[in-house]
Amino acid sequence: MKTAVLGFGTVGAGIYEILKTAEGLEPGPVYVRRGKADEPWKTDDFDAILADPSVGAVAEAMGGLEPTFDFARRTLESGRHFVTANKMLVAEHGIELQAIADRTGGAFLFSAACGGGVPLLHNLALARRGDEIRRVRGILNGTTNYMLDRMQSCGMDYGEALKEAQALGYAEADPTADVSGLDALRKIRLAAAVAFGILPDGCLNEGIENVSVEDIRFYQSKGLVLRLIAKTARTESGVSAYVEPVLFPQNAPEAAVSLNNNLASYEGRFCGRISFSGQGAGRWPTASAVIRDLENILSGARRMLPERTVSAAADNGGEKQRYYLRLPEAFAESFPEAEPPEAGAADGELRLVTKPISVAGMHALAAEIRQKGGRISFAALEE
Amino acid sequence: MKTAVLGFGTVGAGIYEILKTAEGLEPGPVYVRRGKADEPWKTDDFDAILADPSVGAVAEAMGGLEPTFDFARRTLESGRHFVTANKMLVAEHGIELQAIADRTGGAFLFSAACGGGVPLLHNLALARRGDEIRRVRGILNGTTNYMLDRMQSCGMDYGEALKEAQALGYAEADPTADVSGLDALRKIRLAAAVAFGILPDGCLNEGIENVSVEDIRFYQSKGLVLRLIAKTARTESGVSAYVEPVLFPQNAPEAAVSLNNNLASYEGRFCGRISFSGQGAGRWPTASAVIRDLENILSGARRMLPERTVSAAADNGGEKQRYYLRLPEAFAESFPEAEPPEAGAADGELRLVTKPISVAGMHALAAEIRQKGGRISFAALEE
Repeated sequence: MKTAVLGFGTVGAGIYEILKTAEGLEPGPVYVRRGKADEPWKTDDFDAILADPSVGAVAEAMGGLEPTFDFARRTLESGRHFVTANKMLVAEHGIELQAIADRTGGAFLFSAACGGGVPLLHNLALARRGDEIRRVRGILNGTTNYMLDRMQSCGMDYGEALKEAQALGYAEADPTADVSGLDALRKIRLAAAVAFGILPDGCLNEGIENVSVEDIRFYQSKGLVLRLIAKTARTESGVSAYVEPVLFPQNAPEAAVSLNNNLASYEGRFCGRISFSGQGAGRWPTASAVIRDLENILSGARRMLPERTVSAAADNGGEKQRYYLRLPEAFAESFPEAEPPEAGAADGELRLVTKPISVAGMHALAAEIRQKGGRISFAALEE
Repeated sequence: MKTAVLGFGTVGAGIYEILKTAEGLEPGPVYVRRGKADEPWKTDDFDAILADPSVGAVAEAMGGLEPTFDFARRTLESGRHFVTANKMLVAEHGIELQAIADRTGGAFLFSAACGGGVPLLHNLALARRGDEIRRVRGILNGTTNYMLDRMQSCGMDYGEALKEAQALGYAEADPTADVSGLDALRKIRLAAAVAFGILPDGCLNEGIENVSVEDIRFYQSKGLVLRLIAKTARTESGVSAYVEPVLFPQNAPEAAVSLNNNLASYEGRFCGRISFSGQGAGRWPTASAVIRDLENILSGARRMLPERTVSAAADNGGEKQRYYLRLPEAFAESFPEAEPPEAGAADGELRLVTKPISVAGMHALAAEIRQKGGRISFAALEE
């Protein structure tokens, strides 16, 4: 199957390279920006790609919504297959693109958009048809895992860890999407759509920006390892979806995820908990996930989104957990039932462990405290 | 797709149950032994199953080679799909069954035969088409992992751990296939066939029968965790395939595999190392793997074995590793280059660490020592 590649950056160039050797696949034209078509196999004319009847599929690695959404729509309208690593595109327009694919018989797959090289989504899409998926969760952002790992294993502070992650190319110059948990949240929303047929909106994300090296040291003294976890689960009225720091015992599989690796798990009624781990980003892992989707299309796969997938508000009010907190003494009254202060906080601050409290409740209280100028750091306790 | 089930034991009954709710699937007749057809949907007449044109696939959970091979052959000859959890059947007759499937258009899948619920084989079958798989390895026997975990976390001796595993139904009354590493070896041979198109013969297996609780304590004092690992890899002249105890640092993902869980990894040129973990046995995990294969058939999957898969002798002479040894002093001369004895051995015994030595060499030396009546325990050092 001749496959055109949109974009020739890190991932696009990787896809183009693997297409040369992958079974049943071959590279088609590569779309680049106007004026960048410096090789005969590159083009800056998308119409020319669709006019070539030998092109059977298009793999997108440009990122962004424009002109990618237009290109995706037109690829699928033409009856061709469309594969993407672009999580924003799927979150914004996935349901609409799947509807076009259903109409024209094209495939719409996006394994690389969640977990990079980690084969979560296509396994989830397969598992949900024979099982009843209850929850999906994981370490879905390699940048923040790298930073937390370095803070925990080398005692680096947040700023040093971020600088190192940037020097290694793991973190962008503007790292906000990573450290705020937004990148992981986008990925878990896609996993929710694949697992439950519901693309949740209005989710919650607490990142690692408020985690200090003192917090890490305190957690370590309790035998706990901190990871940034994205979660989604079926609830009574829909699905939950959120990102927050979580504390694990040292022998938990999550604690063994080092550097910028990812780990994702799903839990089914029949299969129990199944976990996947590997490289969550980078040229070759991400490109190999795109190739895997294309091979899957050759085997007959056509979709990841369940039929009748809808968008709906996330329900984060149900599940309750205990949280470790660090906050100014003045705000302790916000948690009247929390356990007596533990040692380990700086002057004027307290460390507390809450009673079980809903995710929505905890994130709302933290937002309220921050609005009043209080600095709070929190992490859920995995029990 | 109406699916007949062969066998109504632990796994067969699970498959039958899940077929009732899985998307696109429904339970067909269940084949049981003569005289055991005590329900209208059970039959002891295999011909009647093949005579039913509404049956599109057969799922086998009887075990053994007779009459399963005959049933598999006839199912595929009839153009139907055949799915099995039977590793012996695939190892003995898989290449022949695949040839029939290729001729008739039927699918032949056996995900549940390696790793139980852990989705290794179908991911490997997909990955190998777009990537170059270099090695596959894993904890593929839950019984021995349970025993090692109990010996390490609770200080149980080998006999106590075995008794507990038997009481919980993890180990058979005759546990030989598990504790000798033979069960794990059968599974990794299938993984080699799927990954490399070569089903290796004449492989090596060292199990855990020679591991004492004193060995475990000694390894723990060095910060090492013992796991029984099955490995296969491409070598210069073919593929290696063997099972042996391996020592990991405490923060390795393998060390975090608790109780009777499994963990399997493959390493590709492009994708890097990707790992899968979950329940390796039991009714629901194994049945859900069989269902996953059936769902995969509905998506278009037809095979796991690469075209032109052949059988060939394993090549275990290439890769070299260091080994920890415990052996009688009298046999120390078999390892002239091993490092000076360390503390921790009983009277008349030595503990040594070898220089890098080939897997074939180590297993041969151990066999020689045992033939002369010496008791040797060895474990490779993961470096």
